[in-house]
Amino acid sequence: MIAVYGAATSGNCWKAAQILRLTGQPFDWVETDSNGGATGTSAFLALNPNGKVPIAVLSDGSVITESNAILLHFAEGTLWLPPPGLARTRVYEWLFFEQYSHEPYIAVARNLTTYLKTADQFPERMAQCMARGAKALGVMERRLSGHEWLTDAGPTIADLALFAYTHVADEGGFVLADYPGVAAWVARLSALPGMTTLRRAR
Amino acid sequence: MIAVYGAATSGNCWKAAQILRLTGQPFDWVETDSNGGATGTSAFLALNPNGKVPIAVLSDGSVITESNAILLHFAEGTLWLPPPGLARTRVYEWLFFEQYSHEPYIAVARNLTTYLKTADQFPERMAQCMARGAKALGVMERRLSGHEWLTDAGPTIADLALFAYTHVADEGGFVLADYPGVAAWVARLSALPGMTTLRRAR
Repeated sequence: MIAVYGAATSGNCWKAAQILRLTGQPFDWVETDSNGGATGTSAFLALNPNGKVPIAVLSDGSVITESNAILLHFAEGTLWLPPPGLARTRVYEWLFFEQYSHEPYIAVARNLTTYLKTADQFPERMAQCMARGAKALGVMERRLSGHEWLTDAGPTIADLALFAYTHVADEGGFVLADYPGVAAWVARLSALPGMTTLRRAR
Repeated sequence: MIAVYGAATSGNCWKAAQILRLTGQPFDWVETDSNGGATGTSAFLALNPNGKVPIAVLSDGSVITESNAILLHFAEGTLWLPPPGLARTRVYEWLFFEQYSHEPYIAVARNLTTYLKTADQFPERMAQCMARGAKALGVMERRLSGHEWLTDAGPTIADLALFAYTHVADEGGFVLADYPGVAAWVARLSALPGMTTLRRAR
């Protein structure tokens, strides 16, 4: 049985669980609170020296790190990932966009605002998150104002990766109604069979 | 003919040129100074709405963005990228590690220190770059102290991606001699046929 170590409120961790659900692969979830320090223990660092969740542990003990590598691994051979060629490269582009230009701002704004509740202690960092997060949502809007999905291959792991923190971007102070193409895409993805959404702060 | 738009001092741009050289594909280089604003023009934004180099423009006009997506695209079907399966997933892991946990600190420290020369204006940001950059080099050292390459598949685009900013990390204030496995790997990669190194500040 596959085991996923992750935090229930993390979009990166949601990705791992969601691709396994969509591809019909059973797994155990091992709740691992990264904000609470559970990824810094020597036991966890033995699994991932970079000290981050999610990780997926395969039945033979192999450990897969990096949320988007986990998406690529479990999507291989399914409709969620086109075969090699330009169609797959389009997926790769969005996956790297997500980790470099989207998550560091949209996920961090959400974590500081809603979970760590320390946004007011970091005004410069929050300002950067809001400016660069808005830029990332603008890049998505440019595509999604005229297309149903991020790539021409139908819904793929590119959509899952960007959905992870976009559908809860309001918890970081972003207003999705300002990006109508993105908002419609969030609704479209949410309606797909087998889709779940991230646990939200109460 | 493929055209690569890039800045000669950028490690991300070096990746695009290097994989094309290693796989024997001729290309034109279009020098594009990101520090000087050349990626913010409307002409450039029409090619990449995210306003970043490198981009690769194929002979049919298709544009590929994101340095590690460019590596994956041109390495497909070569020895620089294993076929799908766990061996390829190991490459994916390092590519995402590079863009999330390495480049934002090691490349940014170098750019602020050596190119923009504004490191003293951003002491908190530089301190974060040095701490998290050292952590990233430590993760690499843990692997490379006991192995020749980042994955078990021999030299791959994972090694190229991490080489890009690691081999010039001293320009950001990092001391590679503190990471002997990493330093030996830099020398090993540099000695491969067809390898080039990044233009360095004079």
